[in-house]
Amino acid sequence: MNFCSNCGSADLSYQQPAGDTHQRHVCEACQTIHYRNPKVVTGCLPVWEDKVLLCRRAIEPAYGLWNVPSGYLENGESVRAGAKREVQEEALAEVRLDYLITLYDIERINQVYLQYVGHLIEGRFGVGEESLDAQLFTEENVPWDEIAFTSSEFTLRNYFHDRSIPRKLLHQASYPAVRS
Amino acid sequence: MNFCSNCGSADLSYQQPAGDTHQRHVCEACQTIHYRNPKVVTGCLPVWEDKVLLCRRAIEPAYGLWNVPSGYLENGESVRAGAKREVQEEALAEVRLDYLITLYDIERINQVYLQYVGHLIEGRFGVGEESLDAQLFTEENVPWDEIAFTSSEFTLRNYFHDRSIPRKLLHQASYPAVRS
Repeated sequence: MNFCSNCGSADLSYQQPAGDTHQRHVCEACQTIHYRNPKVVTGCLPVWEDKVLLCRRAIEPAYGLWNVPSGYLENGESVRAGAKREVQEEALAEVRLDYLITLYDIERINQVYLQYVGHLIEGRFGVGEESLDAQLFTEENVPWDEIAFTSSEFTLRNYFHDRSIPRKLLHQASYPAVRS
Repeated sequence: MNFCSNCGSADLSYQQPAGDTHQRHVCEACQTIHYRNPKVVTGCLPVWEDKVLLCRRAIEPAYGLWNVPSGYLENGESVRAGAKREVQEEALAEVRLDYLITLYDIERINQVYLQYVGHLIEGRFGVGEESLDAQLFTEENVPWDEIAFTSSEFTLRNYFHDRSIPRKLLHQASYPAVRS
């Protein structure tokens, strides 16, 4: 942050406002306090029969690697609606959300991943503009060495581990965990 | 947003950038795209014996009303660490987090509430600077007409409803739900 987005002043300080517990960017001209907070990445692992749907990323970061359809939650959107939108955008597919499987924090880059397991409606999917490819994988065929992010590996490994038990568990961890 | 926080220009447009799915504030001078995303409110309902701990807010909004200790997740912080911090700040208390009970979206104001149930260590608490009071309440004594936010009522009602069953359920809803 170089300029105040409210008044345009370059006279910004980094300080702990009165009554606050954290340091903030504060505009010395108009006194606006500029808060910065983590972003939510919402997503869903679509499941069809004994397979899961992954997308191969056509964008950076992790271009060319496989991922659980996920992206930033947008203003005006619920976490569940965002998860379904990401599957639609990346895999041109519809899912019925089943359960929240992952709460994964990456404190270093201020991200909170919330990922669901969902039922891939009629097993239909395509390849969205942000994807190079989309494919259904059995556990044995998942390209484990080409998974885009630890958050996705965390979701995948916990999903396959839990698949044989009736309970649907939420798993929580922080980067760099890949299993809970 | 009146000025670009990168270059200070007032020449901002609101448009859908190439390859994007949403409209953004874009600086016409330096081309910076300014993303706006929902914020996470993290919190915890501390439980001691058959009671829950609520705090009476000393700050707006909802000054004077009772709340589940909660607040904005900070950069560099996990959701779980933030929940514990909020209990410390508002009730000067330590909790051992038990389970995530609530994912509550308020799309209109771009908030995602994530609230835990936690064990109040040794039943000890105080009154933090952001609180006018803190008290333990049985279900019968909860001041239901003076609860600060629907998110807190949602957490409280689901907690008491589920208390008699062994499973620890995550409840999900959007505003204005007060029970799932």
